[in-house]
Amino acid sequence: MASEFERIARLKNIFGEGESGSGVGDDAAVVNANGRFVWTIDAQVENVHFKREWLSMRDIGYRAVMAAASDLAAMGAKPTGVLVALIAPTSLSESEFDELALGERDAADELGTSVIGGNLAGGEPLSLTTTCVGHCAAPVLRSGARAGDTIWCAGDLGVAAVGLKALMEGQSSNEAVSAWRRPRARIADGLAMRGVASAAIDVSDGLVQDAGHLAESSGVRLVIDVDALMRGADLLHESAKKAGFSARSAALFGGEDYALLATSPTPIKGFRQIGKVIEGAGVWLREGGEEGPVDITGFDHFRAS
Amino acid sequence: MASEFERIARLKNIFGEGESGSGVGDDAAVVNANGRFVWTIDAQVENVHFKREWLSMRDIGYRAVMAAASDLAAMGAKPTGVLVALIAPTSLSESEFDELALGERDAADELGTSVIGGNLAGGEPLSLTTTCVGHCAAPVLRSGARAGDTIWCAGDLGVAAVGLKALMEGQSSNEAVSAWRRPRARIADGLAMRGVASAAIDVSDGLVQDAGHLAESSGVRLVIDVDALMRGADLLHESAKKAGFSARSAALFGGEDYALLATSPTPIKGFRQIGKVIEGAGVWLREGGEEGPVDITGFDHFRAS
Repeated sequence: MASEFERIARLKNIFGEGESGSGVGDDAAVVNANGRFVWTIDAQVENVHFKREWLSMRDIGYRAVMAAASDLAAMGAKPTGVLVALIAPTSLSESEFDELALGERDAADELGTSVIGGNLAGGEPLSLTTTCVGHCAAPVLRSGARAGDTIWCAGDLGVAAVGLKALMEGQSSNEAVSAWRRPRARIADGLAMRGVASAAIDVSDGLVQDAGHLAESSGVRLVIDVDALMRGADLLHESAKKAGFSARSAALFGGEDYALLATSPTPIKGFRQIGKVIEGAGVWLREGGEEGPVDITGFDHFRAS
Repeated sequence: MASEFERIARLKNIFGEGESGSGVGDDAAVVNANGRFVWTIDAQVENVHFKREWLSMRDIGYRAVMAAASDLAAMGAKPTGVLVALIAPTSLSESEFDELALGERDAADELGTSVIGGNLAGGEPLSLTTTCVGHCAAPVLRSGARAGDTIWCAGDLGVAAVGLKALMEGQSSNEAVSAWRRPRARIADGLAMRGVASAAIDVSDGLVQDAGHLAESSGVRLVIDVDALMRGADLLHESAKKAGFSARSAALFGGEDYALLATSPTPIKGFRQIGKVIEGAGVWLREGGEEGPVDITGFDHFRAS
C-alpha cells in the first residue's frame, strides 16, 4: 500500500502544477481573482450517492467534479479552479486510485479548468468532496423570479433518473444510464443566462423540488406546463418505456439531472419554455388544461434514509 | 427526524446571511475578491481523525474549521469565507446537529469570518469537510527556504499530541487535552510572517514530517535544534510528565499542533528560533552538540491504518 505522501505525489503527476506555481502540494492553492467570484462545495459518498457496481472509478471522479461545477453553472459562472478532498479506503488499489483522479481531471479538462489542490485521508466509505470557484460579475440568484416571467429549462430532465433506476434493476444497457453516470455541468447554458434570467437553480433533487426552492426564495408561484415539459423529450420517453418507468414521474421528480431551471421575462438562448411565474407560493402543475398544486416528493437525504 | 431542508433552514439561522446577500441556501456563495486569494480544503472524519467520546459536538465543529483555516495561516493569509460540507448520520439529534454548527460558527467568529454556505448529506460516519478562502497578495510558499536561513516556530509543539494520548488513555483532566480539542489557527502569526519568512508550513503531521515537506519543496536541509525546541516548553514538559509520555517525542513527531514552522533570514515577530537551514536534503536533528539525520515517523494516514 502506498503512503499518503506517495499518493499525493501520484496526484501531482495526474493533475499537473497549477498555473500560479502553487498547486497540489502547498498548504493552500493560490488563485487570481478579478472582482467577484462564486464558490461551492458538494459531497459524493459511497452507498449514499452511488454504489461502486453502478460506476467505474473514473466515472465516480468525473461525476463528483461535474456535480459540484453544476452549482456554478446555475449561478452563470465559469469555473476557474477545483479542489478535491478524497476519503479513500486503504483497500483501494493504485490503479483504482489513479482512475478516480483521472476522472476528476477529465471533468476539469472539459470544464476548461484544473484541479489545483485538495486533501487526502484514509477512511471508509469512499467519498469525494469537491469545491469549485468561478468568476462571475453578476451572479444569477434563486431569489429574482417575478410574476409575469416565464420558466425555462436546459437539459434532458428525467433521463438521469431513468438511468439510475435502470442501473438499480440491472439494466445497464439502457441508453439513459450514461446520463446518470456522466452528467455534464451546463456551463455554456449558464453563461447564456447572464443578463437575461431573473433567477436560476440546477436540478439536483428533482424538478418539482428545486422549482419549490426557487419559488420560495423569490416569493412567487411556479406553474410548470407538463405538456410542454414532456413534448419532444424523445430520449426520456424511449428510455423510460424500455425500462418500464413513468417518463412523467422521472421528469418531475427524478434527481441528478443537472439540468438548469431558470425564470426570465424573455427567451434564453438554448433553453425551452416549460411554464410561467405567477403571484402566489409553491409549485403548481398545468396538465391537460387544468392547473393545481403538486406535492414535493423529490429525494430528501434525511427523509429517504 | 428533520428533513435535509429543515436542517438547512436551521443552519441558515445559526450561520446568518452572507454579507453579499447570497449566503447559505443559494447554489453557490458569492465572494468579493481583491486580487489574489488562497484556498484550501480539509476533512475531519469520525474514527479516522477523532472519536466522539473525545470531543463534544461543538468541539468537533470548531476543530474542523480551525484545522482548515490553519492552512491559510501557513500561507500568511487572512480568512475571508468558509464553506462546510457535512455528512451527518440520521441518528444525530437536533441538538447535536445544532452544536456542530455552533462550533463551526464559534471558530469562524474567532477567525473574523463567516460560514457562507456548504453542503449537507445524510450518511455514516460523521464527517466535516471545510473549505476556506483568504486574501493574500504575496503568499508564503513551502518552496522558498534557502541555505543560511534560520528556522522559526510559533505555537506549543507537542502539546496537542500529549492531549490526544491522554484522551486515548482516559486522562481527560490533563491540561494538554484542550490544546487538542480546541486548536487555534495562528492567523496573526501567519500575517507576521509576510514579507519576512522565506517559506512556511503548518504542523499537522508532526514537526519532523512537516519540516521534511518544506525541506523537499525548497531543496534544502533543515537542522532542528532539539535543545532549543525543548527549552521553555513548560506546558509540554509538565503535561507530558503527568501523562507519562516523552515530551521530546511529542514535540518532534506529534501531529495536529497547528503550530507554524517558518524559515527566514531574520527573526519573525512572535516566533522562536529552533534551528537552521543548510545545503543538502531532509531533516537533521542537533542534540547535545551532535547532528544527524532523523527518520520521518510522524502520522501517515495510509501506513498507520
